[in-house]
Amino acid sequence: MAQRRIGLWLLGAKGGVATTSITGIVALRQGLTGTQGLVTELPLLAGLDLVQWPDLVIGGHDIRTVSLFDEAMQLAQVSHAIDADLIKKCQADLDAIDRNIRPGTLLNVGPAISKFADVDLQQKQETPRAAIERIQADLAAFAKNHQLDQVIVMNVTSTEPPLESELPTRWADLAKLLEKPKECPLAASSIYAIAALELGFPYVNFTPSLGSAPEAICELAVERDTCHMGHDGKTGETLLKSVLAPMFANRNLEVMSWVGHNIFGNMDGKVLDDPVNKQTKVRSKDRLLKQMLGYAPQTLVSIEYIASLGDWKTAWDHIHFKGFLGTPMTMQFTWQGCDSLLAAPLVIDLVRLTERAHRAGDRGLLTFLASFFKSPLGTTEHNFIKQFAMLEEWAERVGK
Amino acid sequence: MAQRRIGLWLLGAKGGVATTSITGIVALRQGLTGTQGLVTELPLLAGLDLVQWPDLVIGGHDIRTVSLFDEAMQLAQVSHAIDADLIKKCQADLDAIDRNIRPGTLLNVGPAISKFADVDLQQKQETPRAAIERIQADLAAFAKNHQLDQVIVMNVTSTEPPLESELPTRWADLAKLLEKPKECPLAASSIYAIAALELGFPYVNFTPSLGSAPEAICELAVERDTCHMGHDGKTGETLLKSVLAPMFANRNLEVMSWVGHNIFGNMDGKVLDDPVNKQTKVRSKDRLLKQMLGYAPQTLVSIEYIASLGDWKTAWDHIHFKGFLGTPMTMQFTWQGCDSLLAAPLVIDLVRLTERAHRAGDRGLLTFLASFFKSPLGTTEHNFIKQFAMLEEWAERVGK
Amino acid sequence: MAQRRIGLWLLGAKGGVATTSITGIVALRQGLTGTQGLVTELPLLAGLDLVQWPDLVIGGHDIRTVSLFDEAMQLAQVSHAIDADLIKKCQADLDAIDRNIRPGTLLNVGPAISKFADVDLQQKQETPRAAIERIQADLAAFAKNHQLDQVIVMNVTSTEPPLESELPTRWADLAKLLEKPKECPLAASSIYAIAALELGFPYVNFTPSLGSAPEAICELAVERDTCHMGHDGKTGETLLKSVLAPMFANRNLEVMSWVGHNIFGNMDGKVLDDPVNKQTKVRSKDRLLKQMLGYAPQTLVSIEYIASLGDWKTAWDHIHFKGFLGTPMTMQFTWQGCDSLLAAPLVIDLVRLTERAHRAGDRGLLTFLASFFKSPLGTTEHNFIKQFAMLEEWAERVGK
Amino acid sequence: MAQRRIGLWLLGAKGGVATTSITGIVALRQGLTGTQGLVTELPLLAGLDLVQWPDLVIGGHDIRTVSLFDEAMQLAQVSHAIDADLIKKCQADLDAIDRNIRPGTLLNVGPAISKFADVDLQQKQETPRAAIERIQADLAAFAKNHQLDQVIVMNVTSTEPPLESELPTRWADLAKLLEKPKECPLAASSIYAIAALELGFPYVNFTPSLGSAPEAICELAVERDTCHMGHDGKTGETLLKSVLAPMFANRNLEVMSWVGHNIFGNMDGKVLDDPVNKQTKVRSKDRLLKQMLGYAPQTLVSIEYIASLGDWKTAWDHIHFKGFLGTPMTMQFTWQGCDSLLAAPLVIDLVRLTERAHRAGDRGLLTFLASFFKSPLGTTEHNFIKQFAMLEEWAERVGK
Repeated sequence: MAQRRIGLWLLGAKGGVATTSITGIVALRQGLTGTQGLVTELPLLAGLDLVQWPDLVIGGHDIRTVSLFDEAMQLAQVSHAIDADLIKKCQADLDAIDRNIRPGTLLNVGPAISKFADVDLQQKQETPRAAIERIQADLAAFAKNHQLDQVIVMNVTSTEPPLESELPTRWADLAKLLEKPKECPLAASSIYAIAALELGFPYVNFTPSLGSAPEAICELAVERDTCHMGHDGKTGETLLKSVLAPMFANRNLEVMSWVGHNIFGNMDGKVLDDPVNKQTKVRSKDRLLKQMLGYAPQTLVSIEYIASLGDWKTAWDHIHFKGFLGTPMTMQFTWQGCDSLLAAPLVIDLVRLTERAHRAGDRGLLTFLASFFKSPLGTTEHNFIKQFAMLEEWAERVGK
Repeated sequence: MAQRRIGLWLLGAKGGVATTSITGIVALRQGLTGTQGLVTELPLLAGLDLVQWPDLVIGGHDIRTVSLFDEAMQLAQVSHAIDADLIKKCQADLDAIDRNIRPGTLLNVGPAISKFADVDLQQKQETPRAAIERIQADLAAFAKNHQLDQVIVMNVTSTEPPLESELPTRWADLAKLLEKPKECPLAASSIYAIAALELGFPYVNFTPSLGSAPEAICELAVERDTCHMGHDGKTGETLLKSVLAPMFANRNLEVMSWVGHNIFGNMDGKVLDDPVNKQTKVRSKDRLLKQMLGYAPQTLVSIEYIASLGDWKTAWDHIHFKGFLGTPMTMQFTWQGCDSLLAAPLVIDLVRLTERAHRAGDRGLLTFLASFFKSPLGTTEHNFIKQFAMLEEWAERVGK
Repeated sequence: MAQRRIGLWLLGAKGGVATTSITGIVALRQGLTGTQGLVTELPLLAGLDLVQWPDLVIGGHDIRTVSLFDEAMQLAQVSHAIDADLIKKCQADLDAIDRNIRPGTLLNVGPAISKFADVDLQQKQETPRAAIERIQADLAAFAKNHQLDQVIVMNVTSTEPPLESELPTRWADLAKLLEKPKECPLAASSIYAIAALELGFPYVNFTPSLGSAPEAICELAVERDTCHMGHDGKTGETLLKSVLAPMFANRNLEVMSWVGHNIFGNMDGKVLDDPVNKQTKVRSKDRLLKQMLGYAPQTLVSIEYIASLGDWKTAWDHIHFKGFLGTPMTMQFTWQGCDSLLAAPLVIDLVRLTERAHRAGDRGLLTFLASFFKSPLGTTEHNFIKQFAMLEEWAERVGK
Repeated sequence: MAQRRIGLWLLGAKGGVATTSITGIVALRQGLTGTQGLVTELPLLAGLDLVQWPDLVIGGHDIRTVSLFDEAMQLAQVSHAIDADLIKKCQADLDAIDRNIRPGTLLNVGPAISKFADVDLQQKQETPRAAIERIQADLAAFAKNHQLDQVIVMNVTSTEPPLESELPTRWADLAKLLEKPKECPLAASSIYAIAALELGFPYVNFTPSLGSAPEAICELAVERDTCHMGHDGKTGETLLKSVLAPMFANRNLEVMSWVGHNIFGNMDGKVLDDPVNKQTKVRSKDRLLKQMLGYAPQTLVSIEYIASLGDWKTAWDHIHFKGFLGTPMTMQFTWQGCDSLLAAPLVIDLVRLTERAHRAGDRGLLTFLASFFKSPLGTTEHNFIKQFAMLEEWAERVGK
């Protein structure tokens, strides 16, 4: 893939996931860290001619003007999650990337998110179409200034409230709504998706927000001959559900109830403390059990903000199941993972795989990426091992 | 499969696993219980023409002369694991099955097991060949008296010490050793296997003991045109390892250490309290991580006898893994399952599937049963979901 | 204490706690069970001349007309919490006690409770004073028919919604309100308390409801020369908090956050599923940390209804604390206890100790019983070991 | 206490506990850290005129010649336990303290410890008496060079194997043995104790090794008009046992079994991997349950070395208890604490309190310090809250 230069455009570029992804790419480029957590560095995905670290150029949108270095140091000092020395070695590169970050949009993101935005942005008034054009100008300038062969747009913003109204199912009808700010219910994640896809840039939605999921936007992607995927990165508790639930199903152990309590203390946690935004997240986490088990056990999912935990998300799951002769038994697990560090390598993997898929001619939804998402679009497969087999098959096909 | 009558011959017929399996079959026959835990009752295994509950006739060997009813009541009263009322309804059937149980053999089982045997049996002196002939006479009488079309021999005895010496790899050479009691290192589990296979009866080893694993015995099975499989039923902690380890591997999360502590209080626990017997078990539990991860993390497995737990086995596993940027994270789980109730449905599944496979012409090792075993013979696949796919493929082939 | 006969009058006499308490007393009387869980059977409380099992006569109020035997069998069959055989042996006695149970009152208990009541009771219209007189008639008849020397009234009803309005602080003023149903905000727990105390009978509130806590009712108790105590039996998670929090405090380990999630599936759980009633409970559970630590860490307490658990309450607590050099550390615990079986022995202890204290001349609030309550009235001591020392000191004084 | 200068002489001065204690004192002196974990900084111990940070002078013995700075950086970089920046700010002070550390003795410490020692020390041959004189010369020089008013000798070396032979009970007889290297079974911890006490310096044994526990050495302490205490700092799992076991006892909940599995990866862990040394530790951890409960439940304690954990000790405890009506219930906890950081503040507390007690005239065993030890000498009280009350009473007496 000599000479190709690839842009990674992060939506929410100053957030915890983006900061960690960027720091990770910089550290990998400088040879400062290992490749743990990167699926694309597994031997079985070797030989795919994926984009290499020096060929990735990073930019993005955000609603805050903090510096990437300061954000990264927070992860070191508050959460004890990244080594401060490593971040210091990355500072010059982080500062350079800061200069590629432009003001984002707050369209319909709700007060739980917009209250963190810069004042200027909070006061901005623009139609959805105007926002799209502004975003496209940013993307075009980024591609031109850095002489990029491709730009992958990746959504890692905070979770938006769920969209309650219905959308037109055809792109032509949805496009008209974009001129009418009061009638258009789309929030930022979808506005960004439209902006990217119209330009033919692949779009990946790592969050539970709506993004490119609407049928009309899927139509747009195909029409512009590009690809996209989502949504909601499968990082911790749900990843575990997607290997454990198939085990219970295959052993005919009847899951009577599955309770999952999640506590964590990062910015994402503050946003999710708003019950409206939380609903989007909980729905995404709770959906897959029925699909994997074939029946719906009683479930309970909570996500709560506990400041002292910083970026460390702790989940406790209690699974009550009925075994032979109807005897109830119990499995419990706790998961103590650093949220941003679980998400960041998947973001990097998705950039590499999406770019490669586009290059290989894949268009529309990239369902072979199902293993990366809590709610993968275009497939009902939630069994992680089977999802991973889809990735392996794709790699075999592309790698030939 | 009308008119076919199938014998289930249990080695260790009065132990916890056998007692629960027998009680379960009786209860299923009487319509007293549901089918939770039975893999063969999953919709995706329907249509295979498996043996039905009324067509199963049960007998076996044991080294103790307690009654099945009393053993089952222990599980109700000491372990709170089975409903006492259900057992009482099964009493007449259990008493009838008691009459089909013959004295087993103590050859090379070691003192931790033989101390529980009846005094008569402890004093018996016979060559391996004589023991085989006695066992075969019991099996033949069972088949004849009950007009059976097939007998499946299932080993659910206590764990024997590991065999430290080398065995001849050809059946002809091993057969000669059976005449020489002092030179023959084979223990009961293999003696039973030879007895069954020589008669052409399928043999399944649900325990970590050696059973039919030696190459020479595999040769015998093929020579007598029959089938067999083992070993060590995958019931609890190891089942979890076989779905969790692939998840860590596929996500490139580096497992640094995996500690598993198991406590339980049944008879099996007492036998495993002998360090020699425990070694056989721990080896079987510890082996698969390296095969699934591709490298060997530091591991620790303990199994300890805690009387108050009765048949409830509790496992605590602590998995320490390295994520992105080298950050250590932790998963812990506890598993509180009733050992006999986890094992019994698998025993019943194995009888049905082995009988069906033999009828379908399968000979030698039944590797499609890998998902049922901690150390499946004839395959290196330990990923539970992939093992289960092997079962599904078999079912598809046979079910046509 | 020869010849003295003591009445135990249970409010909520058919609920899980009462049913278990009654079954326990009957089983103890018949010598069918041990004394685990009974504080009053500890050697260090011997020699206090407490009421013996044969001298206890049981009656009560309830809002449902189920039978005690059926309720007890539920605990055996649904929750696997009590041995069914034991209950069957108690059946005759339980049936006899059923005949001592009278219809209770639903005054201001809220819909989450009243929906479980018999239809007759739901339609009953009476002033608080009329309800009190009806209750007193029941109590007087009970005492007379059974020739009782004393009656202890014990509240084990479901949790009422919190009282939001202010009450008069003098009994004379509160008494007037009882004639005015629309102005009187008191709920059943306080109505029962007034009924008992006016007759000079001791009253104990085992629930988080208001009961005898109002200052005016405390005045009544003293005026009628009797004693009372409450509230909210300290059975599980909070008991643990009351030994663990002092440990963190004494070691100067700074608790940054304490999260407690509780799941259970009994009738109490259904009532607490109503957010209004839950509030009363959560307040009671959450209050004591600040008092024991001397500062308020971030806390989170949830109580959720999970049907499959029956009477088994499972709590997961996550305690995040800062150690030397500011390093964060973590303690987690899970508690799997049978709610009714943890409460019942304390109810029995409280009857015996309250009766003895009254006999010894104690009047007003029995603060020496603080160790039994989540929110003990009349004391700010929450450290369990120090509370227990108060009991020991009382026993020493009385036992002389 | 103006003008008084106090020496802290650490045995095992380069080990994890000592390194952390020293770093902590330096950091406190420089105002770089808070006082979490220090019992002596609790408000209720204020006003005791304890030694202040600038008045503490530190020295010690060790068997290795690594630098304190390097050891401290290990805790930062391997275990993520201390902030590296803090250590760098302390470097000059740590280097200065390095110069006060002298070669220790390996007498009877066993191969698991001596293999870590410098080669010179491994080859040294001296009688116990000669070792004592060498140690005393070091102590005297330290006191003189730094013009110290008092020296507290604190043992934080690795755990020695248990002493299996009997010792003379009178000091006069034991003293004679010190001349006979082959007959004297005393190991280093006791040799150091004798050296200190003979000079009248207080001695505190923070390890499970024998130290000053023998009756003859207690006699020596009194004879030389000084004080001492031990043994085995109560830092984690045992601290929890000492609050939880009294709770079970006071509630008459019958503990049937208590299982505790400990895993950790520091140097102490390597030494304890030797089964002989481990025995000393396990005995100390296991002893107290019977004393607190009044009966002996089945117990199991394991301590295992898991390299990846570094200084983080993780304990899983499973407590199986019988409640009312004989129903079994379960409590489990996990404790994730940094071993050195839990121990260090207690070491500092013990120095301050021991110095103060000696100044107040306390001689012999300082039993009021029981709350700091797993196996406190001179008392059978193991209930932490009651032990803490002993400290409070002492503080009240001394503080007047």
